Amino acid sequence: MVPNRSVTSKVLALLDAFTPASPALTLSELARRAGISLATAHRRAAELVAWGALERGADGRYRIGLRLWEVASLAPRGLGLREAAMPFLEDLYEVTRENVQLAVREGLELVFVERIAGRHAVPVLTRVGGRFALHATGVGLVLLAHAPAQVQEEILGAPLHAFTEKTVTGSTQLRETLAAVRRNGYAVSYGQVTTDSVSVAAPITGADGTVLAAVSLVVRAQGAEPAALAPLVQTAARGIARALGHGLPQ
Amino acid sequence: MVPNRSVTSKVLALLDAFTPASPALTLSELARRAGISLATAHRRAAELVAWGALERGADGRYRIGLRLWEVASLAPRGLGLREAAMPFLEDLYEVTRENVQLAVREGLELVFVERIAGRHAVPVLTRVGGRFALHATGVGLVLLAHAPAQVQEEILGAPLHAFTEKTVTGSTQLRETLAAVRRNGYAVSYGQVTTDSVSVAAPITGADGTVLAAVSLVVRAQGAEPAALAPLVQTAARGIARALGHGLPQ
Repeated sequence: MVPNRSVTSKVLALLDAFTPASPALTLSELARRAGISLATAHRRAAELVAWGALERGADGRYRIGLRLWEVASLAPRGLGLREAAMPFLEDLYEVTRENVQLAVREGLELVFVERIAGRHAVPVLTRVGGRFALHATGVGLVLLAHAPAQVQEEILGAPLHAFTEKTVTGSTQLRETLAAVRRNGYAVSYGQVTTDSVSVAAPITGADGTVLAAVSLVVRAQGAEPAALAPLVQTAARGIARALGHGLPQ
Repeated sequence: MVPNRSVTSKVLALLDAFTPASPALTLSELARRAGISLATAHRRAAELVAWGALERGADGRYRIGLRLWEVASLAPRGLGLREAAMPFLEDLYEVTRENVQLAVREGLELVFVERIAGRHAVPVLTRVGGRFALHATGVGLVLLAHAPAQVQEEILGAPLHAFTEKTVTGSTQLRETLAAVRRNGYAVSYGQVTTDSVSVAAPITGADGTVLAAVSLVVRAQGAEPAALAPLVQTAARGIARALGHGLPQ
């Protein structure tokens, strides 16, 4: 038991118990992960089920409920952004039949807000609603290049995971990469996440110059011409910024 | 103030305050809508912001946070269903360039889980994460036709909103419509939501015969051939059911 926590934080801890790896939990798993007693977990879970934040299946396990997803769909950086971006993502997909991704920065990581994948597109590791490191993917490099200095220093100062042998993990080289992203107006991640793919990403910029999100195309590395894809991705990013009215949905 | 409410329900009431029509709220709006004091709202909102369930903008207003959207993306009937269905929805979209919709029943209404719209497709009223009545749309008629008897009786016993002059609002005629949906294996909603559109929908059925969701094509009424579109939608629905392993994601 964690002492002195507010009830609000205990309710949120119940939601925190669910992860992509364990989206369905028994009551005792829920209690253990949330750090509360079985009796308290039982009472709180029942209230969350009644509201629709959790659902309980025929197997007795708890899952995240559709009602929570409905409320969460009001997040400006979730579906709000996604709805404005969708026509441009569809266009990118239609002309390339490749992976199209939309992501925002959340603290020291990125969250994928949308992903469209052709049946024959190169496999990627991403999942809508999933998190990823900032230093490796195309969208991540864009978001990191335009993040506040404090965020950049925190990431540059910590050990960086090498997803492949091409992942840039040295802080000097990563600083140079980020400078190039700002200079060029787009990022290229060549084999830095999976060896057979290359990602080209561009920033979606607000009226005040803030980078709100990033959009990318992820294609097979073999035969890819990142410089030719960049204008396509940059044009989509500008279209999305315009559709957003150069700010996130209010 | 509502007396004797649990803290959990007060936390959830703060989330309930946000709606599609008012996705950004001041502290006093939040307190009033949640039925709690300004001081309590201030303390709870701060905790929700710290966790990421809410975000506070430069304008001082509160909005739903990306962290809540991340957790909510674990809902089996939200993004889990959507991810399995997406390749089939893309296929439907590619061959028709029309509106493609995916919905589930939530109580006496439906919730749109996904929507893909061609730039030149007929305008529709739907929004991902949005709710709609069951008795008018194609997906709604499919979900209602296969809902538990209790749900059907509750809807048939209440006054039904006429979106257009073609909306079926009489209980006898609606019963006949629902029987036809079950017999045919698909639903056609002709001008029942907007006069210029027709929707053709089919059920996504689980291994136990339960209807898990519904998929539809919404096209311009003029020149539409619902009977020709039905096999296309039904095939997509069967593909999605197979991709789901004939049950919702666990």
